[in-house]
Amino acid sequence: MAWKAIGIFDSGVGGLTVLKEVVRSLPQEDTIYFGDTARVPYGTKSPETVLRYSRQIANYLLSRDIKLLVVACNTASAVALSQLQKELPIPVVGVIEPGARAACQVTRSGKVGVIGTAGTIGSSAYTKAIKRINPDIEVVTKACPLFVPLAEEGWVDNEVARLTARIYLEELKAQNVDTLVLGCTHYPILKEVIAEVMGPEVTLVDSAEQTAITVTRILSESHLLRPDGEQGNHHYYVSDIPAGFIRVGNRFLGGRLGDVYQVNLEQEQQDGGGGEEEA
Amino acid sequence: MAWKAIGIFDSGVGGLTVLKEVVRSLPQEDTIYFGDTARVPYGTKSPETVLRYSRQIANYLLSRDIKLLVVACNTASAVALSQLQKELPIPVVGVIEPGARAACQVTRSGKVGVIGTAGTIGSSAYTKAIKRINPDIEVVTKACPLFVPLAEEGWVDNEVARLTARIYLEELKAQNVDTLVLGCTHYPILKEVIAEVMGPEVTLVDSAEQTAITVTRILSESHLLRPDGEQGNHHYYVSDIPAGFIRVGNRFLGGRLGDVYQVNLEQEQQDGGGGEEEA
Repeated sequence: MAWKAIGIFDSGVGGLTVLKEVVRSLPQEDTIYFGDTARVPYGTKSPETVLRYSRQIANYLLSRDIKLLVVACNTASAVALSQLQKELPIPVVGVIEPGARAACQVTRSGKVGVIGTAGTIGSSAYTKAIKRINPDIEVVTKACPLFVPLAEEGWVDNEVARLTARIYLEELKAQNVDTLVLGCTHYPILKEVIAEVMGPEVTLVDSAEQTAITVTRILSESHLLRPDGEQGNHHYYVSDIPAGFIRVGNRFLGGRLGDVYQVNLEQEQQDGGGGEEEA
Repeated sequence: MAWKAIGIFDSGVGGLTVLKEVVRSLPQEDTIYFGDTARVPYGTKSPETVLRYSRQIANYLLSRDIKLLVVACNTASAVALSQLQKELPIPVVGVIEPGARAACQVTRSGKVGVIGTAGTIGSSAYTKAIKRINPDIEVVTKACPLFVPLAEEGWVDNEVARLTARIYLEELKAQNVDTLVLGCTHYPILKEVIAEVMGPEVTLVDSAEQTAITVTRILSESHLLRPDGEQGNHHYYVSDIPAGFIRVGNRFLGGRLGDVYQVNLEQEQQDGGGGEEEA
């Protein structure tokens, strides 16, 4: 029996932190990752545009015969998840709900902090998801726009990262949150410096980890898990020149990024395949 | 007699530093700015894609009856300038040549530093432009990816900016350049901290300033300058939701950004106008 792969997409390289956690939890599973590097970032685009792009990518991954789709992008999760769940014949998992659920379980004080990009924080996606689960929880949010470029530059444990984290997180710390959701797929890369600034009494909720837990549960419940002991293969696709993707991707995955292929999604839609070339 | 405007475009908000210098030099001129916020950044896209986008924008601005076009984007200047100069019936000015020319005039040691985004530095556009003018000049380059997000966040004179500048510029300083080209339209925002780190013996060449000087010279030579004493009007267009553009644009222009309108370039191409709505 051939086992289908898990499909994962993001607007760029950030979703690789989700891939990493999925592979850590389920090393036997094949994965197909798609990074929409031609059209990154999604956070500044209109909801209609993000939904259209997400559909194109979902259909491309479906044509590669996946058994589950992870929307490893906060903007696409906020804007396109429920629509994709309605339209696709396979389970679709976003990154917001798992992080929100974990935060609600972890907090004792009922005061939760959420950090993310300006787009994610502006959309209130995490606040809404947390309030849907438990309306009594108080949510304090903070946009941290410099964390993404710091993570991509690999400045994760130097003085600039530490000082930046202190400036952004001071305010949340002063408000005594006991739980902090890392609401951006890039932020796990900066986890250590964030933990250092927030102190040991604050629990960090890593959306990437929580998403991997949700994926494992769904595949297990639907009896779609590949047997333990097998070794998964991992394929990477991008929509534009992958030079930056390869450099940053290797940083995110600890140097274990494989070959990356470029796919022209618009061509793909017209001729149903073949718009692919090795980078 | 109706005086035509100066058209200026960039992939996003960065070109506003060029607009600011043009307005400072020529307060009597009308300007039309276009920021391609739907498709920013250009630096990671293929040359064919950047040329296609640049042509679309140039044609849109031409349809608004401009007398000169400034390509206030380093990537588009490197990739599309000569083609636009061939195709358009008006003068077209890029941001690379003016900065390169000024650096060649300013340096006494013959050792010039250039800083820019990873895309601009990787393209060697400034090195090639400087070498074309004077092959004996030694050029030392350094990509500074965090400068753009620092400028957009408005962190231009805090400890994070200072420390970041020190890390990036240390190496150039050690190599004894006597001239430093700010090869990115965002960098003038960080000029003070860059000057502080480089020290008084290094002359900074601001591409935005030099581009404004070139624009003034060309309009003057072609007798297209509007008479002194008039007061120019300034219009701003973007290709996607302008929320971030307005916030950062006001920071770049010192709060003097006017109304910003959204234009759908694809629709514009089909029906020749009308795809415009106030933001």
